[in-house]
Amino acid sequence: MIRREFTRRLVGGITSVALPWTYRMQATLRVDGSRLQAHLAALSEFGKNPGGGVSRVAYTEADRQARDAVTGWMREARLETAVDAAGNLIGRRAGREPSRKPLLIGSHIDSVPQGGNFDGDVGSVGAIEVARTLDAAGVTLRHPLEVVIFQNEEGGTTGSRAMAAGLTPAELERVAQSGMSIRDGIRFLGGDPDRLDSARRAPGDIAGYLELHIEQGGVLDDTTTPIGVVLGIVGIRHWDITITGFANHAGTTPMDRRKDALLTAARCIEAANRIVRSVPGRQVGTVGKLAVEPGAYNVIPGLVTFGLELRDLDDAKILRLYQRILAECRRIAALNGTALTSTETLAIAPALTDPGIRGVIAGAAQELGLRTIRLPSGAGHDAQEMARLGPVGMIFVPSVGGISHSPREYSRPGDIENGANVLLRTLLRLDATL
Amino acid sequence: MIRREFTRRLVGGITSVALPWTYRMQATLRVDGSRLQAHLAALSEFGKNPGGGVSRVAYTEADRQARDAVTGWMREARLETAVDAAGNLIGRRAGREPSRKPLLIGSHIDSVPQGGNFDGDVGSVGAIEVARTLDAAGVTLRHPLEVVIFQNEEGGTTGSRAMAAGLTPAELERVAQSGMSIRDGIRFLGGDPDRLDSARRAPGDIAGYLELHIEQGGVLDDTTTPIGVVLGIVGIRHWDITITGFANHAGTTPMDRRKDALLTAARCIEAANRIVRSVPGRQVGTVGKLAVEPGAYNVIPGLVTFGLELRDLDDAKILRLYQRILAECRRIAALNGTALTSTETLAIAPALTDPGIRGVIAGAAQELGLRTIRLPSGAGHDAQEMARLGPVGMIFVPSVGGISHSPREYSRPGDIENGANVLLRTLLRLDATL
Repeated sequence: MIRREFTRRLVGGITSVALPWTYRMQATLRVDGSRLQAHLAALSEFGKNPGGGVSRVAYTEADRQARDAVTGWMREARLETAVDAAGNLIGRRAGREPSRKPLLIGSHIDSVPQGGNFDGDVGSVGAIEVARTLDAAGVTLRHPLEVVIFQNEEGGTTGSRAMAAGLTPAELERVAQSGMSIRDGIRFLGGDPDRLDSARRAPGDIAGYLELHIEQGGVLDDTTTPIGVVLGIVGIRHWDITITGFANHAGTTPMDRRKDALLTAARCIEAANRIVRSVPGRQVGTVGKLAVEPGAYNVIPGLVTFGLELRDLDDAKILRLYQRILAECRRIAALNGTALTSTETLAIAPALTDPGIRGVIAGAAQELGLRTIRLPSGAGHDAQEMARLGPVGMIFVPSVGGISHSPREYSRPGDIENGANVLLRTLLRLDATL
Repeated sequence: MIRREFTRRLVGGITSVALPWTYRMQATLRVDGSRLQAHLAALSEFGKNPGGGVSRVAYTEADRQARDAVTGWMREARLETAVDAAGNLIGRRAGREPSRKPLLIGSHIDSVPQGGNFDGDVGSVGAIEVARTLDAAGVTLRHPLEVVIFQNEEGGTTGSRAMAAGLTPAELERVAQSGMSIRDGIRFLGGDPDRLDSARRAPGDIAGYLELHIEQGGVLDDTTTPIGVVLGIVGIRHWDITITGFANHAGTTPMDRRKDALLTAARCIEAANRIVRSVPGRQVGTVGKLAVEPGAYNVIPGLVTFGLELRDLDDAKILRLYQRILAECRRIAALNGTALTSTETLAIAPALTDPGIRGVIAGAAQELGLRTIRLPSGAGHDAQEMARLGPVGMIFVPSVGGISHSPREYSRPGDIENGANVLLRTLLRLDATL
């Protein structure tokens, strides 16, 4: 059965390539699912919360200790480990053709506060397991291989941005979730914030980047699909929308004389939800934060600021939706005698994965008898930064119930093992055909 | 013209009383408007904010220093000053008939944070001015007179409650806005929290209580009416309404799979406003505070708690409105896949003013050529506590623009002087007829 599949043409962008004999021999390789689980379990001890899950926030002692453990596993896979100036942990393996640019695989091990044990962890231990499997089988790739654990993904993909785009002086001074500045955090992890240029890579410096990750949404779980081929990482825009009314005594101000900023905000939140849902597609829109001033039972709210987030693979669609929401909110604000201002606080462009690599992933999964669907990633990932440097691919495995950034985040061992095997085969095929 | 008026029958509950000669002589008495303004200006220096208004929060140095100044003005009016065990500042004046219960007049001088210069201040300096006018004219009332500056009105009518109802041990330990406990605050003002019983009075212990106050709403200003005859102080109920949804990743959770607690809350806020406005009357309903958890752009809100306040002169109407709001919010919560709980956190019963005193106030205003309207007080006042002890009356003067609890709070000097003269005449007529 395997033999038959090897003779099939590859799906997608990389087709009609005669696969070398070495790849066919390597096609029987499989990762060790029990070792994968053992590493995930070991990782879950660092920053473990009593109620479940972890708070392994970047630049904390738990983060640093986990990186030490991961460094040990990299060495067991006979990777040559180093921390780059940006604080990324890198395990290297030489290739047969030293002039080639490296293939990178990896993810992150930092978590959000009160996070789970799969976001980032699966792709990190999966990448190390792939390297170890290659080592155990005595396989040397044509390309150099780098297993990268990017630092502070959850706090803004700091490590991958430092590698692919650089960090501004202002970003270095920003205080991260840990309470430490990014600059101090980089030093804390063994990097050197004064030598960031040495960690920087240029477009074309990598042959490709592959990342295995949990979906964090419910599409694969709902459709019982074991492997997701990621179309790209959605663009994200954030706005702070401020409603100015007039704070007045809630007992003495008649209902028809109020300029209630919270009432306006409530109507805007309802409108934003309605507008985002009014067009077909997978776009999402969220109001996740809101602050009321002065914020007392007995004072009509005079000032409300809420955060609006829109995400989609198409940035133009994000902007069209935003303009509709803004126009409707302005109309509502005026009706309520309140004023509205909006400030964009974040704009991350969508990052598409490489169409050729999508095909390779789908082909690899098919060879393993695993169904796939194509879907966008609603969450941000280090892969979106790596896309500045070369072609990237992302492999999703199911999140049970679509739950993520929560102690209740869970992915089944069998799904994780499948994902790591798809990562392994995709890497082998890319190495053979790129 | 004055003579003619004296022979008129009084309006309201106290009628057909032959007014004694002394009252007719006293009818020419007027307060000193410039002295009133000078005292208001002097008071505005204590706790003055750079941007205007005051933060003269109870149990702060600004509060204590202002009380010292007020004590001085009481002494200039030849009142015998004392601080009762509850920390209320009292200036006493003997009556001609010592067996009579005292008539009380007064208000408060503590402010909300970022408050104005009229709420409480007008009634406090107005009451002292009335006492000084009586003293200057050599008028001795039949009843003993007490000018009372109640402590911590803004923080929950602490001083008047201590006098009329007593304070529970738990209330004494509660930390007030100043950061001091109520117990320590009472001591800070010269009271004795271990002897509160000595400050307590029983129903029937007072002949009556009169309070002059700014309206804090816009009814008098809108209708250019100089004097408001207060029908009563509205009842107030507060509830904390908690919506439990499910906090999930805002990028990866499709719009139709969300349990967004803030979206439910937004719809409930809209519904509460609609329901409060759907029935005739002067009831008010406000959502003035709201907290979102976890409160990030990129996390669907899992938990929202908001504070609902309803006020009306009729407690049964408050409860009917609440039941309608609760039922509608439960329906909305269920539609959104969220759960709702509601907890009552405050219930203050309405306190009606004495119908006879309402008539005396209206008559006094008419004698001065001042139009009146009758209206409820949407704000709480010390008068609502005094109503437990005897008949009370309240006189409102216009708040320009209906603004209160704000540095922009303003009442015109002429209106304040009118209010103090109505207070003086009402006091004289009550003293003559009770």
